[in-house]
Amino acid sequence: MSEFVTALTEVVGAEHVLTGERISEDFGHDEALSMLSEPPAVVVRPVSSAEVSEVLRIATAWDVPVTARGSGTGLSGAAIPEPAGLVISFERMSRVLEIDVDNHVAVVQPGVTLTELDEAASAHRLTYPVYPGEQSSSVGGNMATNAGGMRAVRYGVTRHQVLGLEAVLPTGEVIRLGGKLAKASSGYDLAQLIIGSEGTLAVVTEATLRLSPQLPHQATVLAPFRTVEEVARAVPPVLASGLAPLILEYIDEFMMAAITQSQQLDLGISAEIKDSAKAYLLVMLEGSCTERLEEDTGRLCTLLTELGAVDMYVLPGSAARRLLEAREKAFWAAKAAGADDSVDVVVPRASVPEYLRISAEIAQRYDSPVLGCGHAGDGNVHFAVFQPDDLVRSALLRELFEAGMKLGGLISGEHGIGKAKRRYFLELTDPNTVALMRRIKQSFDPHGILNPGVLLDRPE
Amino acid sequence: MSEFVTALTEVVGAEHVLTGERISEDFGHDEALSMLSEPPAVVVRPVSSAEVSEVLRIATAWDVPVTARGSGTGLSGAAIPEPAGLVISFERMSRVLEIDVDNHVAVVQPGVTLTELDEAASAHRLTYPVYPGEQSSSVGGNMATNAGGMRAVRYGVTRHQVLGLEAVLPTGEVIRLGGKLAKASSGYDLAQLIIGSEGTLAVVTEATLRLSPQLPHQATVLAPFRTVEEVARAVPPVLASGLAPLILEYIDEFMMAAITQSQQLDLGISAEIKDSAKAYLLVMLEGSCTERLEEDTGRLCTLLTELGAVDMYVLPGSAARRLLEAREKAFWAAKAAGADDSVDVVVPRASVPEYLRISAEIAQRYDSPVLGCGHAGDGNVHFAVFQPDDLVRSALLRELFEAGMKLGGLISGEHGIGKAKRRYFLELTDPNTVALMRRIKQSFDPHGILNPGVLLDRPE
Repeated sequence: MSEFVTALTEVVGAEHVLTGERISEDFGHDEALSMLSEPPAVVVRPVSSAEVSEVLRIATAWDVPVTARGSGTGLSGAAIPEPAGLVISFERMSRVLEIDVDNHVAVVQPGVTLTELDEAASAHRLTYPVYPGEQSSSVGGNMATNAGGMRAVRYGVTRHQVLGLEAVLPTGEVIRLGGKLAKASSGYDLAQLIIGSEGTLAVVTEATLRLSPQLPHQATVLAPFRTVEEVARAVPPVLASGLAPLILEYIDEFMMAAITQSQQLDLGISAEIKDSAKAYLLVMLEGSCTERLEEDTGRLCTLLTELGAVDMYVLPGSAARRLLEAREKAFWAAKAAGADDSVDVVVPRASVPEYLRISAEIAQRYDSPVLGCGHAGDGNVHFAVFQPDDLVRSALLRELFEAGMKLGGLISGEHGIGKAKRRYFLELTDPNTVALMRRIKQSFDPHGILNPGVLLDRPE
Repeated sequence: MSEFVTALTEVVGAEHVLTGERISEDFGHDEALSMLSEPPAVVVRPVSSAEVSEVLRIATAWDVPVTARGSGTGLSGAAIPEPAGLVISFERMSRVLEIDVDNHVAVVQPGVTLTELDEAASAHRLTYPVYPGEQSSSVGGNMATNAGGMRAVRYGVTRHQVLGLEAVLPTGEVIRLGGKLAKASSGYDLAQLIIGSEGTLAVVTEATLRLSPQLPHQATVLAPFRTVEEVARAVPPVLASGLAPLILEYIDEFMMAAITQSQQLDLGISAEIKDSAKAYLLVMLEGSCTERLEEDTGRLCTLLTELGAVDMYVLPGSAARRLLEAREKAFWAAKAAGADDSVDVVVPRASVPEYLRISAEIAQRYDSPVLGCGHAGDGNVHFAVFQPDDLVRSALLRELFEAGMKLGGLISGEHGIGKAKRRYFLELTDPNTVALMRRIKQSFDPHGILNPGVLLDRPE
């Protein structure tokens, strides 16, 4: 091991090779609730793709498993290193390299946070619209899990924003894919394959991202409904209306109580409405002109009333901001309330009512609270699961995943599989598809050094 | 061979196995101008994925190269079979299986044409927005090349519409990927990898496509400019305006003359303007309400005037439709005028002026007319190349591709590489990237039976 460390030191310098007590506790985990921390043996902080390439060649030569790490805010354990593993940390590769105003493009390093990118884009009245609710997350991490978030219903998920990237293969080759290009048909789209691969195929060292014009005005409507199913049923008509909401979320009564309490947020909802409302629909519209936005908000309110909303709150800017911040922190509210795990099954959006009904039955059968909110416009249901017993919870999760898949869904809409859900993924996915994924993994990573145990089993 | 035919006959029935004179001349080519026809030895017309699977198993056993064929409207020779090859034709797998109104999704078989899909979606006031200008093209063919077209500037290209697919691997396994899902993070996105792979990885037998709400009103503005570069420079400000054009095309003076003459279209442009205009910008806006659309059209006209348009024509519906039809047929106009090849280099959209300038220099140096139009909003330049000598034209094309790549572009934005541009692609692409593509090809198609010679070299 000490020769391994020496080799790394020659590449990145002693200051940027961490071992022993210099490795902070953070490097051992991400935010997956159910996973144990696993400290790496070594952390390196390279400053360029050339250094990343050298580091990967050394790791290959020493057969050391490698985990690339952004901000460590993932929820499925994909950033938890292997025992005796190496972590590549992108603290020193976290710059916005360029905001290209004419092409509406940002070129960034993987360690940049969404907050930093948003600041840089805003200066040119542009926006990077991915909004996974954790603005300290890194673009590299977002690419690894194909992060989505509240604005995906309008702007799409991470994969729709990535136009090009530079990546280092585990064997050290640096490749550049795509570019500042709106489209391409020039060979296999390897960039799209790397996105969502959770650090198992290549290490991304630069990304070219689509930016969108910033629309200056927003309006937020909160509509309580009598049942969760009524909320979910309201979604298709809202999307068919052409109002093109920026945000379209549902929040169940428990999650609403949890997030408003934890943020001490009073939305002026009467006790009577609170009692009758089992769930809320949160809709945000955006526009470039206030008159049109007001008109659209009126249309939206009329539509929601027709769809059964028991009341309607057009939230002023400050309340809207605070509610959104609270919604962003739903995960933390759930964690503070003692949630044992979180899941984010995705189903066809019209199947959300049925999925919520089935999930409630499963939860009741296991005597385990399963509470949530979610990206209603995308069919992406987020549950906080309360069940401390590992075996019971595992059986419960398996049923939740199976139920989603029976409705044509998948295990995760945006959190990824990681290490936390690998077992379910491998058990529930068609073996021919898994076998093909293994062959693809092999074609990128013949020695199996990149994030073994994430998504697929460790090599034997 | 006769035993091979017998085996196929047992799967699809004698009526649907064509040999000898029963094979129409069409099966030997697509619309690539520079390629020779190559009749296949056998054509099969399966009716289900189960039949496709059996056919592929037989082809693997007999080591016969297989080319999947939709409508045969491709422009790069990806549907030209190999000598003694087998063509799988999707004439009998060409149905719209479902329009799912609540999920805004269509489920279709690969042989369905865009015209048929559009009809089925329109009945529910939904639209499949990919509009490559050849509405008789099939969805399967569109997926193979990741087709784009005029509306991509607003709605994205084929890959952005495909939410899920069923595909048969060359070794016969049927896999289902994605679904009626707005997003997913559950393993490698193999559907995105298959899209744009030009029939070399798998045979798609069903697709789940995103539909969008149909906006009922359109307005079309044609703006002549003094130079092609002025037109190209007007594009970023139009996109930054937030007007979100449905169509944003440039047409050079020669192409404008060719398409208006071939369609006998009089747009009322004065001789004086025609003389001073070297290029035209064609912009279409769409909306759900006429008042807003009129207001937006006014804003657009003001903006275009500021950007240097020498005149402005807000085209009435019938003239707009006819001009768009003529623009769609630009390829046919070029073919009728004797064009020897067509290219569709994609560059960062802000680099279009520079690319047009460099291309004009190259064309002049080769004494070969290179005329065009293109998807200005996407940086996708379409040229008709007039140079009958194969060797000279080949050198000219290589320079055009190299020049585009030097500006950060790629050889093709939407036509694909196929057989026609394989040589340039392999010569000009980073060898590490090509090697990775070969390994991926191997992981799908270990015997190399799917479209050998397309994109990558034939196995040795």
